[in-house]
Amino acid sequence: MRAINFNAGPAAIPLPALERARDELLDFEGSGMSILEHSHRGKRYDAVHHEAISLLTSLLGIPDTHQVLFLQGGASHQFAMVPLNFLLKDGSADYLLTGVWSQKAFDEAKLVGSPRVAASTRGEDGRYTRIPGATECAFDPRAAYVHLTSNNTVFGTQWHTFPQTGGVPLVVDMSSDFLSRPVDVSRFDLIYAGAQKNLGPAGVTVVVVRKSLLAEARTDSPKILRYATHADADSLYNTPPTFAVYLMRNVLAWIQSLGGLDTLARLNQEKAQVLYDALDRMRGFYQAPVERESRSLMNIVFRLPSEALEEKFLAEAQKQKMSGLKGHRISGGIRVSAYNAVPVEHLRTLVSMMESFAQANG
Amino acid sequence: MRAINFNAGPAAIPLPALERARDELLDFEGSGMSILEHSHRGKRYDAVHHEAISLLTSLLGIPDTHQVLFLQGGASHQFAMVPLNFLLKDGSADYLLTGVWSQKAFDEAKLVGSPRVAASTRGEDGRYTRIPGATECAFDPRAAYVHLTSNNTVFGTQWHTFPQTGGVPLVVDMSSDFLSRPVDVSRFDLIYAGAQKNLGPAGVTVVVVRKSLLAEARTDSPKILRYATHADADSLYNTPPTFAVYLMRNVLAWIQSLGGLDTLARLNQEKAQVLYDALDRMRGFYQAPVERESRSLMNIVFRLPSEALEEKFLAEAQKQKMSGLKGHRISGGIRVSAYNAVPVEHLRTLVSMMESFAQANG
Repeated sequence: MRAINFNAGPAAIPLPALERARDELLDFEGSGMSILEHSHRGKRYDAVHHEAISLLTSLLGIPDTHQVLFLQGGASHQFAMVPLNFLLKDGSADYLLTGVWSQKAFDEAKLVGSPRVAASTRGEDGRYTRIPGATECAFDPRAAYVHLTSNNTVFGTQWHTFPQTGGVPLVVDMSSDFLSRPVDVSRFDLIYAGAQKNLGPAGVTVVVVRKSLLAEARTDSPKILRYATHADADSLYNTPPTFAVYLMRNVLAWIQSLGGLDTLARLNQEKAQVLYDALDRMRGFYQAPVERESRSLMNIVFRLPSEALEEKFLAEAQKQKMSGLKGHRISGGIRVSAYNAVPVEHLRTLVSMMESFAQANG
Repeated sequence: MRAINFNAGPAAIPLPALERARDELLDFEGSGMSILEHSHRGKRYDAVHHEAISLLTSLLGIPDTHQVLFLQGGASHQFAMVPLNFLLKDGSADYLLTGVWSQKAFDEAKLVGSPRVAASTRGEDGRYTRIPGATECAFDPRAAYVHLTSNNTVFGTQWHTFPQTGGVPLVVDMSSDFLSRPVDVSRFDLIYAGAQKNLGPAGVTVVVVRKSLLAEARTDSPKILRYATHADADSLYNTPPTFAVYLMRNVLAWIQSLGGLDTLARLNQEKAQVLYDALDRMRGFYQAPVERESRSLMNIVFRLPSEALEEKFLAEAQKQKMSGLKGHRISGGIRVSAYNAVPVEHLRTLVSMMESFAQANG
């Protein structure tokens, strides 16, 4: 039996994508070898690589002004790569701080240039429970770019509308909500996302970058760390993580078979609604700390009346084959990650367990 | 039927390692989820991660003075990371140039500091057909490190004894012969290797670094690009490429089941011998350009009397289900990659085809 997987990432992967991988793991398309054994310069891998790019382009509606790249190292690597490409030593960039990951991105930028905090929603207790409002963001028109994290896995907040940056390039870490909803790509100059939330495997990072931005990038950084290097080589400058790209291709094909991002957005909305409704209904027992309009559809966090009850809750969930519910060590409490591959039934099962638990322990 | 796979990397993977992955791809150890869906902070992945480290440590006899790291980005990424950790802007490092990859490593270092060529075997035609002799290497005692590429996939040369650097740290790119033979790790200060030759999947890079070297490393580079960051976190600072580490674990377990590196060294010696003997025997038709004492056991390169015959040869090999034999675009000709997972029988099949081909076309 498949487990109920609420992991925050690496996370649940759609069963059809995994089954397809299993069925052809020893013999890819009758070639007598695994996709893992094919050269990244050969025609079989090449077709997979370009199918993944083309599926992404069509699902997200990526315009000709932008290019898709497949890199390695996850978002943490992008935290360094963004400033190494676009931030000069004495140059400034604006960072919007809404949690742990945006803070880490800011810290890396400080080692490269002189970034600035354009807004922060850090509370006095060190927690972040909301996204800044439009009037809170004070952008510097000379900034090299504005950086934000669209969804915050640790504290469970999410940007539902993106700020106007007044012509300054907008760089967004979409690691944890990429492909969970349609977005207007033309509004962004660089999007990056580790794949291990909504796209499948850890080990590949998707970048969608405005081509004109590449022309303005630094050329004094190591060649492997420049976006232009990978753009020029169609992400085949060096050996790509071939299996991770292949499995992502399978996940993208699954998304397409479901009907694309409109369908996923509706399902993700429904899943989060089931849980937030339950939290609101039982707010005497469960407490959801995030301000309503900043609530994440991907990571829903809540607390119980005591840490002891939280421990008991996690043990009970484990008994019912639900895993991945323990909150991040920084925030504590419970975290439910409801990425693309998690079906609404799993949320209903969880809510039903929450109801019994509240009744028995309230 | 499994193909005969002479790919230069990604390359053949041992069948038992792939079968194990296939059999448990949907349900890892009865957990109800794929290893791809497990959290990198959970106990199941943690056990795999540390088993891979411990297998590597025991197979290679890594002493306590050194630490194993799992990174991403392949050797090309290490070309930048090595200088970003150990080379100051005005500092020097000695590079031994024996082919395309060592040249690329040198080029990246030039963007960070002021590296120097300590020896080069580049011929007037731009080709490299040998490893430099001991007296050819002029080391600078003030160099931050000496860098060399132990095996050169494009031109088919390999270091069989390593130079004495007089106390200067020795950094070696072992991407294409790592774990193909025993080495005395204590002689090296930093070894790096992309996994896609002898260790399995593309997407994970193994680093073996002397712990005392980390203490001397630069601290002004982005945190994600510092070896110390990953060493401190046991390669779990950020999300590792979990499936690639898992599959490498399977390959390492297979190596152990064979009897370890002594067995592999013997088998690799035998495989190369079968082919070099054939080349020497038929030297009127096939021409092996590499000097005898510099010949690689991993990548055996040769030419035929004309490019037209080379095309014909490749077509004939393809017909007999042998793939991956086309030489690198820079060097042309034929290249046979005989990494760990390639059995000696495949070399015998190739030699037998070479004999018929020479007879028919000589």
